[in-house]
Amino acid sequence: MDIAIPLYDGFTALDAVGPYEVLSNLPGATVRFVAAESGPVAADTGMLSLVAEAALDEVPAPEILCVPGGRETRAAIADGRVVEWVRRAHETSEWTTSVCTGALVLGAAGVLEGLAATTYWLQLDSLRECGARPTEQRVVREGKVVTAAGVSSGIDMALTLAALIAGDDVAQAIQLGIEYDPQPPFDAGSEAKAPEHVVELVRAVAAARSSA
Amino acid sequence: MDIAIPLYDGFTALDAVGPYEVLSNLPGATVRFVAAESGPVAADTGMLSLVAEAALDEVPAPEILCVPGGRETRAAIADGRVVEWVRRAHETSEWTTSVCTGALVLGAAGVLEGLAATTYWLQLDSLRECGARPTEQRVVREGKVVTAAGVSSGIDMALTLAALIAGDDVAQAIQLGIEYDPQPPFDAGSEAKAPEHVVELVRAVAAARSSA
Repeated sequence: MDIAIPLYDGFTALDAVGPYEVLSNLPGATVRFVAAESGPVAADTGMLSLVAEAALDEVPAPEILCVPGGRETRAAIADGRVVEWVRRAHETSEWTTSVCTGALVLGAAGVLEGLAATTYWLQLDSLRECGARPTEQRVVREGKVVTAAGVSSGIDMALTLAALIAGDDVAQAIQLGIEYDPQPPFDAGSEAKAPEHVVELVRAVAAARSSA
Repeated sequence: MDIAIPLYDGFTALDAVGPYEVLSNLPGATVRFVAAESGPVAADTGMLSLVAEAALDEVPAPEILCVPGGRETRAAIADGRVVEWVRRAHETSEWTTSVCTGALVLGAAGVLEGLAATTYWLQLDSLRECGARPTEQRVVREGKVVTAAGVSSGIDMALTLAALIAGDDVAQAIQLGIEYDPQPPFDAGSEAKAPEHVVELVRAVAAARSSA
């Protein structure tokens, strides 16, 4: 099972590393990080770089692709190289997946036309621009296309995918292997559950970033 | 707030990136990945490399240190360089933390003597070798020392730490910012919750790896 995770400047690290940690544990799986050019790629905080081991055109037809989001996803879409890679890879993939605003990359590649899909909660409306139907579920499957909500949801998406590919026992073994028995100290992980003033705080930070 | 995450060959990527994704969102925080030598450091799957931006001796006294685990933690302990760094950094740190078998590094540095602590579920007994009291909680705090259970638990630990440092509102905003509203497709993330045959499967894989 040949899995590719495309990186671009300003991706969100957990979007990529959550699914990697799950999918790399699938029996026989190989995960490769790819980018326009091989080498270190800086995440959106400016505090982390992940190494892309290959260039996009060296891995044109992975069986699974998983596109992470990030604060700079729109710049990556404007750049066009990852979008074009997704468009072609999707033609032969077994699974085409995204985390967070990675869905907007799938959308720009024409993958989401007419499909239900999800993305980061603050960007759900943007899915309409791609011809998709925004859906407030954590993981949305439409045939071979699987989209996940924000950042940490990639772990849930990848476990769902692991079960579809290798069965429930393997997926559960991976879950136990990464001791994914979540116990966040608060129940504030969605717009519906977080206190209103916390939602407003996050909206304000996001707005300040996007106007910076 | 100066935060350092030490890397070593064979670390587990999510152990490091989960806390990074949370702590890098603390107001005024800087997270730096450090290693014996700066440059790419290979994770334990051989499929991912994270860049250490500085050498250990360039960052001798971070306010927070967070030590990840990995399949090669014992080799890193035998190497000694990260252990020695932890021993010194702990003298002046505000918080000394670990994820997964990172606790064994804290233990080797003498940090856990007489303390309650946790680690990866398959390694809990190893904590006794360090003079610690194994504790089956996801996050264990003893003064300025905070240990977390396996791999994904670093997210919960970092949110707990964020609340201690910056208050509940900020921690909740970070949780919403990374949309951490976990919905795993199974409830198999701990030894107590996973089906017995899944537990045995994970034990067998771990035993095969450690004898390889």
